[in-house]
Amino acid sequence: MSAEWNRLLTRLRELNDLSGAATLLAWDQEVMLPPRGVPARARQSAALAGVRHERLCDPELDALIEACAGDRLDAVDAAIVREARRARDRAVKVDRSLVTELAEATSLAQQAWAQARERSDWPGFAPHLTRVVDLKRREAAAIGCGAEPYDALLDDFEPGARAADLAPLFARLRMELADLLATVTTAARGDKAAGDPGALLTGDFAVAAQEQLSREVLAAMGFDPSAGRLDVSAHPFTSATSRGDVRLTTRYDQRDLRVGLYATIHEAGHGLYEQGLPAELEGTPVSDCASLGIHESQSRLWENLIGRSREFWTCWAPRARRLFPAALAHADAEDLHRAVNVVRPSLIRIEADEITYNLHIVLRFELERALLAGDIQVAQLPALWDAGMRQSLGVTPARDAEGVLQDIHWASGLFGYFPTYALGNLYAAQFHAQAATELPDLPDLVSRGQTGPLLDWLRRKIHVRARLWSAAELCRDVTGRDLDTEPFLSHLRRKFGQLYGL
Amino acid sequence: MSAEWNRLLTRLRELNDLSGAATLLAWDQEVMLPPRGVPARARQSAALAGVRHERLCDPELDALIEACAGDRLDAVDAAIVREARRARDRAVKVDRSLVTELAEATSLAQQAWAQARERSDWPGFAPHLTRVVDLKRREAAAIGCGAEPYDALLDDFEPGARAADLAPLFARLRMELADLLATVTTAARGDKAAGDPGALLTGDFAVAAQEQLSREVLAAMGFDPSAGRLDVSAHPFTSATSRGDVRLTTRYDQRDLRVGLYATIHEAGHGLYEQGLPAELEGTPVSDCASLGIHESQSRLWENLIGRSREFWTCWAPRARRLFPAALAHADAEDLHRAVNVVRPSLIRIEADEITYNLHIVLRFELERALLAGDIQVAQLPALWDAGMRQSLGVTPARDAEGVLQDIHWASGLFGYFPTYALGNLYAAQFHAQAATELPDLPDLVSRGQTGPLLDWLRRKIHVRARLWSAAELCRDVTGRDLDTEPFLSHLRRKFGQLYGL
Repeated sequence: MSAEWNRLLTRLRELNDLSGAATLLAWDQEVMLPPRGVPARARQSAALAGVRHERLCDPELDALIEACAGDRLDAVDAAIVREARRARDRAVKVDRSLVTELAEATSLAQQAWAQARERSDWPGFAPHLTRVVDLKRREAAAIGCGAEPYDALLDDFEPGARAADLAPLFARLRMELADLLATVTTAARGDKAAGDPGALLTGDFAVAAQEQLSREVLAAMGFDPSAGRLDVSAHPFTSATSRGDVRLTTRYDQRDLRVGLYATIHEAGHGLYEQGLPAELEGTPVSDCASLGIHESQSRLWENLIGRSREFWTCWAPRARRLFPAALAHADAEDLHRAVNVVRPSLIRIEADEITYNLHIVLRFELERALLAGDIQVAQLPALWDAGMRQSLGVTPARDAEGVLQDIHWASGLFGYFPTYALGNLYAAQFHAQAATELPDLPDLVSRGQTGPLLDWLRRKIHVRARLWSAAELCRDVTGRDLDTEPFLSHLRRKFGQLYGL
Repeated sequence: MSAEWNRLLTRLRELNDLSGAATLLAWDQEVMLPPRGVPARARQSAALAGVRHERLCDPELDALIEACAGDRLDAVDAAIVREARRARDRAVKVDRSLVTELAEATSLAQQAWAQARERSDWPGFAPHLTRVVDLKRREAAAIGCGAEPYDALLDDFEPGARAADLAPLFARLRMELADLLATVTTAARGDKAAGDPGALLTGDFAVAAQEQLSREVLAAMGFDPSAGRLDVSAHPFTSATSRGDVRLTTRYDQRDLRVGLYATIHEAGHGLYEQGLPAELEGTPVSDCASLGIHESQSRLWENLIGRSREFWTCWAPRARRLFPAALAHADAEDLHRAVNVVRPSLIRIEADEITYNLHIVLRFELERALLAGDIQVAQLPALWDAGMRQSLGVTPARDAEGVLQDIHWASGLFGYFPTYALGNLYAAQFHAQAATELPDLPDLVSRGQTGPLLDWLRRKIHVRARLWSAAELCRDVTGRDLDTEPFLSHLRRKFGQLYGL
């Protein structure tokens, strides 16, 4: 190791440590912070973001990166230099004042969003969102990567992705999903005698017992409690201040068992990825997910491909009956499998079924892309949202809380983030199909609660590769082909074909 | 406002925001962090400490301070310059590497201490403490304030205090307390028929009901829950990431109602001070306590002068009986007052009565002063601790967990901190005596649970003055005289004279 290389690593580790501290500030704001602490927290987040930005833009870091880039580097070190360059290149294009303004504005907007959602008070949130959109447009213009403003933001979450490539992919997906939705809805209508299979899981489910179930499923999935936590927040999320401190949040709904359980499984999928990042890369910029699409593939694989499978309920039905004897006394695995796979156009993205979920995403993608381009304004969002929901899902929110106010993302400045959810669904199905080929007894293992071999496969194929490879490279290496909609659509056709007797 | 003044304030606010972030990292480590997250947290704390130190040592800050010091300043602005100078003067004497080494070493030592205390494993903790002591001695030598190494550390917590002045004060206190202890112990021995009045509050007290009581007392004291939290940690403490986010922790012992209740009241006293710092000073270096002795005066005033008074139990006995009907069915205010005022030499500082408490402090003061001077070594601590306990209290710890390992302070690098507890007791009694003069119906108010006027008095006299004045100035202004042992000793003689019929 050259002296330069050591100095570069020291600087990169400091940047990583400052990020970890910023992650804690954000987690704490969602889970712990009392309301009157919000303004100071916004300033603290801004101060940290400012320091980190200053460090990234330091000419000495620049010199070290370029000095080390000239060395003969192995693949890992080359990836470290590549990611250091990438972070620096984005940072130097953005003024420090914009960075701190954004940190403070989004911190305040998140708080305003939480209150606005509670009261369904769009006018209370709109000025905050206008401010955030304005700042994000300035940021996108400064970064200027890709063919349109949106690309600069998208690229931060899904390196290399471009809106113009996603648009046709999403259009195809929407068409196929609309077809499938129509078929399933027709079949369900013809089978009215079946009633609503989901009614089984709505009613009265004590939160303490729900939490117990969540914790047991989490343990069975292999989540290491000595390197993480599970808490409650308004909007479930996962964040890691380090690979030894991976924090999941969930949200229990006493009237619906599905809400908390699947939020926990989803976030645990994210958490297992974070806990599986390799120790030897810790502190470097490649100790990160390949992309947020890949991150989401892990959460969706566990939530949908495993958690909403018949085999999952073969394993967990007896335990669920014991925990909720009044409600589930006569429920078998088949009943529970049906109850968690009701297909029905609905208002809330995070509670959507596997067929309609991506339709929620496509709407958000189109709206935020147009916002960034300046083609629409924040004031138009509620009307455009409602019209979009009507058009693609045939439902209209009665209140903004169930419409445009439902997600925290825009308040947090996360434009270009939603598409990674749809990509995650596609990656999840493609990875799962491959895992099923390589682990032929996978269904049987899942039905016995033995998901260790699957976790091991994900660890080896995906987690330990961290950000050494791009999402596209990872996909080709793991599955032998480029990302495609087919494994996802096949999975849906097979599963819902069976469930609805198509 | 000159341009320089605005630039100075901007820099001071950033320093304050970085401190707030560091406070959160430390709080989270004690209350939330999973064990495997500790090493990364140590690095994160070190990174923040390094950044903050670098900012304090920036020649531009220096230039701004000196430019502004030349202006005609009002009292508040002059105090801001004075405190900015003080922080800078300390910082520039210490190498950045020592700052980050200390941050990391103390973060790791705290974790080691928690494990070592649990297992009473002194050898597991000793190497960490040796490292911390070594670093603190280097820090003290670098700062070089006062007549001996200890003074440099003491001055950080109690500006202007010197070990050579505290030593005779503490010697006098020890003598008086030993006398009083002997008198009370003799009286108690003569009254064996009374049994142990404390037995009333030992037994089985459901933690949920204890938490309920704690929360009700907290609310009655005037703690604003929208600007703070109450959590549980191994070692109760208070920390504030801002005046809108004041975090108390407590610790419940199912077998002893006193432990959790008085920990909560004590920390709430600290918390009320933090919540009472004036909004208009927020973000400046004078938005802080006058000294830790003054801070501790607030916790001890509420804990002992109010919480352990007969009037407190006149108010709270009915509620305690309802919450713990089995144990307290026949307990009246007098019984409860006696139960929380048992004088008995014991091993654990934070559970000590008002007479013996300061004896615990004097021992720690003497040991840490000698450690810093290099007169004793870490390896000698357990034996010296036990000998000191025997000599001043007549009791000997059976395990190091109940002896030298009981406090987190040294692991955290907090040498020079303990004396502020004894000073706090003295200030508390002197302030309370003054409050009783100015609020003649104070006992009556307390017995009716109306402590609002007292809080208001503390707010006006102490809290809003923040760090504008020194502890000594504050004491003279509020009470008309310098700090003295007499109000404290008078309080003890009056109270225990009554209780033990002296």
